[in-house]
Amino acid sequence: MQIYLDNAATTKPLPDALSIHADFGWYNPSAAYGLAEEVFKRAAQTRSLLMQTVRLGEGGCIFTSGGTEANNIALLSAFKSGAHYVTSTIEHPSVYAVFRYIEQQGGRVSYVKPKGFCILADDVASEVREDTALVSIMHVNNETGALNDIAAICAAVKAKNQNTLFHSDGVQALFKTPVDLTHIGADTYSVSAHKIHGLKGLGALLYRANTKLKPLLYGGGQENTLRSGTENTLGIQAFDTALRQEPMDIVHAQTLHNELMDGLLGISGTHIHLPGKKVPHILSVSFEGMRAEVLVRLLGSQGIYIGSGAACARGKISRVLLECGVPRALAEGAVRFSFSRHNTKEEIKICTEAVQKTVSQLRMS
Amino acid sequence: MQIYLDNAATTKPLPDALSIHADFGWYNPSAAYGLAEEVFKRAAQTRSLLMQTVRLGEGGCIFTSGGTEANNIALLSAFKSGAHYVTSTIEHPSVYAVFRYIEQQGGRVSYVKPKGFCILADDVASEVREDTALVSIMHVNNETGALNDIAAICAAVKAKNQNTLFHSDGVQALFKTPVDLTHIGADTYSVSAHKIHGLKGLGALLYRANTKLKPLLYGGGQENTLRSGTENTLGIQAFDTALRQEPMDIVHAQTLHNELMDGLLGISGTHIHLPGKKVPHILSVSFEGMRAEVLVRLLGSQGIYIGSGAACARGKISRVLLECGVPRALAEGAVRFSFSRHNTKEEIKICTEAVQKTVSQLRMS
Repeated sequence: MQIYLDNAATTKPLPDALSIHADFGWYNPSAAYGLAEEVFKRAAQTRSLLMQTVRLGEGGCIFTSGGTEANNIALLSAFKSGAHYVTSTIEHPSVYAVFRYIEQQGGRVSYVKPKGFCILADDVASEVREDTALVSIMHVNNETGALNDIAAICAAVKAKNQNTLFHSDGVQALFKTPVDLTHIGADTYSVSAHKIHGLKGLGALLYRANTKLKPLLYGGGQENTLRSGTENTLGIQAFDTALRQEPMDIVHAQTLHNELMDGLLGISGTHIHLPGKKVPHILSVSFEGMRAEVLVRLLGSQGIYIGSGAACARGKISRVLLECGVPRALAEGAVRFSFSRHNTKEEIKICTEAVQKTVSQLRMS
Repeated sequence: MQIYLDNAATTKPLPDALSIHADFGWYNPSAAYGLAEEVFKRAAQTRSLLMQTVRLGEGGCIFTSGGTEANNIALLSAFKSGAHYVTSTIEHPSVYAVFRYIEQQGGRVSYVKPKGFCILADDVASEVREDTALVSIMHVNNETGALNDIAAICAAVKAKNQNTLFHSDGVQALFKTPVDLTHIGADTYSVSAHKIHGLKGLGALLYRANTKLKPLLYGGGQENTLRSGTENTLGIQAFDTALRQEPMDIVHAQTLHNELMDGLLGISGTHIHLPGKKVPHILSVSFEGMRAEVLVRLLGSQGIYIGSGAACARGKISRVLLECGVPRALAEGAVRFSFSRHNTKEEIKICTEAVQKTVSQLRMS
């Protein structure tokens, strides 16, 4: 038995892209023969499909090696020594660590704290100044599922300073909540393929028309000179396949979420870290006295896979939960359940029972 | 019928890695459950395998999104405004374009010209000065197959200035010529998986112990903090599979090379661009009066796939061949034949006949 509830860390890739790639999809898209040009054309079609999916009208899309690179390009493109930036204290490391680097290089950064796990438009706007080059606020938080109203945040930022750029890390939002970039108004928006059943090693940066971007990598001039390097053809083809699936049904996700929450609350000393607004695909929970890694490992040995902390850096305590006001002892024990379209109510039932049993065994030992 | 002779552009991926990945290889290597830790461990084993393959004793290896990123990290890590650099005029764009960027940022760069298609140690050493931060000379040229004696070049550089770093782009060298980094003495060396039947989207930067590297991407701190972003698990697993194959037999490659060369010389107005020292896997040829893209396209329609120019940037005339002294009219018409272990003498025979026929048809039209 295997129950995979760590879909915010990564998702199982769909197998469908592999046959196209094995057949002719692996040719170098820059080569001049017909089949290679077909590979190039298909990548362009995937680009269009992604832009339609997120309702980006005028603008473009760069394929990158993942969400991390997409975030790095967006933020570092707007870097000017001495300029001012605004972000939140609950961003993913691929945004947060870039701002730490920007500070080292002479940029000044204001960090907005969450309220009820979410970042509020007024709190962001009040930090925006005349010299604010860029604001970056994530769409969905990767640890708690908190859903930020980035359309309102973007509007408030632009109302305060129309020259300030707005970036949003959308890695956990795509296919989890509707993404309408025309409505949101962000200048740049990042996504990752492996969070929606594509492959690791492929992400994209979407940008509105006339957004000035600078490359991080120099070379053959691929991706409209903004991201050199031979295109990750299999990654793009697998992303295409993933984008053609229906997003997970939100009612189904909410059902799993509520059943899991209800079940876990039956265990004494359970704390659900529940944002005021959230996506149903992620549930963050602490059990008093439990250490996350021990629980994750024991459940793993039973074929049940869940996340610990941020699930993208080993053995670190969660900055995000601390910033959200979760006490240190609970933050150390936080585990994350995250669903994909493939999870069932039956799996949630088995998982809940296994957690109950494992927690009580650990407490007795 | 399909004859693929564009293996310097990219190679057909081996299918073997896919089943491990579909089974459990796709788990996030940073997750805390056992199977995810197994994915993490296997990536570490691939790292060791690569280091053994290139005989790097003390040192390390960062997985990157490809050869381009590996070259960018090596060169930009050594960037200091005002410092001096040495490279050659025949480098791949992923090195050459970085130096153009370094010049824009206030670095000074000396460009060494080839002699007989190759870069000579004395010519490089004579450019090295007291303030030379880094020298970058490719191991095997991607357009001509020229093989540079980078052990001699590195020794000459270090003899002139022991503080100067030496980087080599080894993307076209791995599995084409013996790579012994202990003997070569390079501080950094880059490789790419998709040139040896791995997948696009995965490369590596090898470095000697105590080499100071700076990240280009900030985030979760993967790859020993030097390259953040969720690991490209399928790419790493496919690279592992590829590294466990035997390199192409050099005698077989030389046989194909000589038969192709002899056959093509039977066509009037054929110019072989033949370096004094070279690998046999690449053969660069021009036919008087022929435009490369037309020939490549027509052969492609017959199922024979060869490269035009650098084959990594559409429709550009080859800087490399011009720098090697090939007249402009011939450089515009240069095509590249490049072999993998899967090519046969029979394929070379069919290809030669098809080229003969196509060239004479084009000349008559």
